[in-house]
Amino acid sequence: MANSPSGESVISRVVRLMSAFDRDLPAMTLSGLARRAGLPLTTAHRLVDDLVLHGLIERLPDGNLCSGMRMWELAARGSRALNLRELALPFMEDVQAAVHQHTTLAVLDHGTVLYVERLSSPHSSLDAAHIAQRMPIHAASSGLVLLAFSPPAVQAEVLAKPLKAVTPETITGPALIRKHLAEIRQRGYVALPGIGVTEWTGIAVPVFGPGNSAAAALNAIVPRQEAAVPLIVPALLTAAHGISRALKSAQPEGQADFRNR
Amino acid sequence: MANSPSGESVISRVVRLMSAFDRDLPAMTLSGLARRAGLPLTTAHRLVDDLVLHGLIERLPDGNLCSGMRMWELAARGSRALNLRELALPFMEDVQAAVHQHTTLAVLDHGTVLYVERLSSPHSSLDAAHIAQRMPIHAASSGLVLLAFSPPAVQAEVLAKPLKAVTPETITGPALIRKHLAEIRQRGYVALPGIGVTEWTGIAVPVFGPGNSAAAALNAIVPRQEAAVPLIVPALLTAAHGISRALKSAQPEGQADFRNR
Repeated sequence: MANSPSGESVISRVVRLMSAFDRDLPAMTLSGLARRAGLPLTTAHRLVDDLVLHGLIERLPDGNLCSGMRMWELAARGSRALNLRELALPFMEDVQAAVHQHTTLAVLDHGTVLYVERLSSPHSSLDAAHIAQRMPIHAASSGLVLLAFSPPAVQAEVLAKPLKAVTPETITGPALIRKHLAEIRQRGYVALPGIGVTEWTGIAVPVFGPGNSAAAALNAIVPRQEAAVPLIVPALLTAAHGISRALKSAQPEGQADFRNR
Repeated sequence: MANSPSGESVISRVVRLMSAFDRDLPAMTLSGLARRAGLPLTTAHRLVDDLVLHGLIERLPDGNLCSGMRMWELAARGSRALNLRELALPFMEDVQAAVHQHTTLAVLDHGTVLYVERLSSPHSSLDAAHIAQRMPIHAASSGLVLLAFSPPAVQAEVLAKPLKAVTPETITGPALIRKHLAEIRQRGYVALPGIGVTEWTGIAVPVFGPGNSAAAALNAIVPRQEAAVPLIVPALLTAAHGISRALKSAQPEGQADFRNR
């Protein structure tokens, strides 16, 4: 099927092109796009013409290219991420109204934490945990709470791989992580300072879907010297209960869950 | 490039496959997917295998296929829709806290209204204006307000096409629409009952970006017998000012705007 001389499929090359756009660089020239995608200019040119035709890439008035509204629409319409965040958003607003901090919702996906929603605190300088960003599971409170409430096989798979330190405080030893996971299961939440970004503490609780493992993690991110952590936990637990209830009634047992390894 | 015997490109067939997933049917079998996409089973099979490999489609535990988290991530990371809604969301929350009604944010895209964000009123039964849904421009308050503050060439293009009635109250005559557009420009808002969904009134105001035309429409949707319409307009205008200010400081003049015809 439709492979280049290198044997790479059109789909693979399209993924490379679309991956070139991100939060920091949402628009670029064709040659910049080809370079970031690692594709020859002629190949990129041909594919981009077709992607523009379908609205997946758009040409801006200044001639730069950017990800198209059609691309977002195609992905959003059938998206479980969007369904999950639609159910969760009212409860996340409740949390933010109560604690005035960044509030995020994350899932496990392909061995990493993927943030599917975030409400930002307008006075916060945190530049992490943006929507559609990923973090290593062991370097995020959301990741640890999702792992703690994952099946043993998932835990074993994640902990079998070499774990890199993101900050000096990231926990990288599998045995120590297992100890933390047991504690998280017992307490029902995690609050570890500096494991992902030195200056911040993530406080995360599990959201359960119809199954027994966590469907998502609800997370507040606070400055690490914040004294209010004990007060934030009950707010998160309350909202997470609400989201779980909404998930279970929207998605009866036996149907696909939102989690994806 | 990579065309089928019918001359259709891989990208075109992938768009057909991904378009098959939507809010009402987010997961289906391979043969169901092939049927909805209008592709031969063998073609769908081959493409789906490659899409699954890249995480753009996912196989659920029950064997059904659904749109993948990677698809959402790819589209979301570089998305102007997401940037726009991130800026707008805090102001939309303010509106919702004040008026307790569905609040949406929409843009013009490819000759239709595309809803990029929505905060729902939990007690409302409205089943329209969902995120990533589209409406004809002339049959939505958001569309009329976006059209009113569009360049004359855009207005002419939209009004030159045959306009279908979505409800008995949809305005389809170009001359009458032009009269409404002039009124909207003068008043700064629109509130027309039943033009898109009989039981509802959309109240919409423009959000301006760095240019002079509307970058988005902010919209509250209320039951048509709602008496509070005059009170909702100032709430929307206030929030729209805030979003415009945020847009202009995030996106200095001369850069690409969010609007896309």
